[in-house]
Amino acid sequence: MTTPNGRAQIIAAGLRTILKKGYNASDIQEITASAGLPRGSFYKHFESKEALGAELVRQYGETGPRRLGLADKSIPPLERLRRHFEAMSDLYIGMKYERGCLLGNFSVELANQCPLIRARLAALFSDWTQDIESAISEAQRTAAISTNAHAGRLAIFLLDSFEGAILRARVAKSRHAFDAFMRVVFTQILV
Amino acid sequence: MTTPNGRAQIIAAGLRTILKKGYNASDIQEITASAGLPRGSFYKHFESKEALGAELVRQYGETGPRRLGLADKSIPPLERLRRHFEAMSDLYIGMKYERGCLLGNFSVELANQCPLIRARLAALFSDWTQDIESAISEAQRTAAISTNAHAGRLAIFLLDSFEGAILRARVAKSRHAFDAFMRVVFTQILV
Repeated sequence: MTTPNGRAQIIAAGLRTILKKGYNASDIQEITASAGLPRGSFYKHFESKEALGAELVRQYGETGPRRLGLADKSIPPLERLRRHFEAMSDLYIGMKYERGCLLGNFSVELANQCPLIRARLAALFSDWTQDIESAISEAQRTAAISTNAHAGRLAIFLLDSFEGAILRARVAKSRHAFDAFMRVVFTQILV
Repeated sequence: MTTPNGRAQIIAAGLRTILKKGYNASDIQEITASAGLPRGSFYKHFESKEALGAELVRQYGETGPRRLGLADKSIPPLERLRRHFEAMSDLYIGMKYERGCLLGNFSVELANQCPLIRARLAALFSDWTQDIESAISEAQRTAAISTNAHAGRLAIFLLDSFEGAILRARVAKSRHAFDAFMRVVFTQILV
């Protein structure tokens, strides 16, 4: 039976399962069970696990950690950037390092395996970087930080660095990597 | 039949297969086939896929990219660091972004799934970071870079940032992330 919110339930369960176990280790049976739905209901909403994966990336870009702390333009740009990375650190710490970022996880598991998902990941990397670049450019215009560095290049570097910090935090089960990120970025780079 | 180098063949094939497809998507059948061995020979050398994974991490730490460019102490420390990250960038670019770093890949796929492999990954993160920290400390002692920053924290940050750059490079199929890393690190951080 297709419930009105069956699709949303599968998306939520898919995100939960995949963020914890990874894409390849999560099977459709497990995702539908976690959604409280029969296995067959999956195919009423998605034609394949890849189709679910691609939709997860799209939604993650719309409502995921990309949005944390960056949106409120009444806050000065450097402070927005600090809130963005602090809120993300808190997110992973709060989940006891059990879940990674969908962007980083899928980059490892699917960059070679699924062209549709790779294209969505590339778009998300690019959009998210642009959000960060906007805040850096604004901070440079308001003289909150030096204009010596290229804002776009810095934005690439900061997002990548944070994705890398998540990897170490998950392995070490420790916030150390996030603390190092915050300290280096906000005392040595964005100055 | 156990060939004298059956174990080494399985390790080489395991690394090749897993670096390209990921751990969970690589099955034992595929690894032994890639080694040119029958499936059953796997269990003469490893009791499980996890045991192979743990051995791969150990060997990767001994002979993998961690060793690139950092060892020759006749070269000044800042130049060693530059060669280390440049050689790694060249490695991934040369493989057309098809393979990731075993450390980063396994952090995503196995940090929650396998305590033995997680412990090996934590040791590798820590050892590799220490290599980088030594070079940074030496560069600080020789006044090649400022002593204001904490060498250990910088080392954590640099390795994590590079691991993150690999993720983006694989998705974008572009060296852009490595170029941003090199530029920011060697013009803004290690100065």
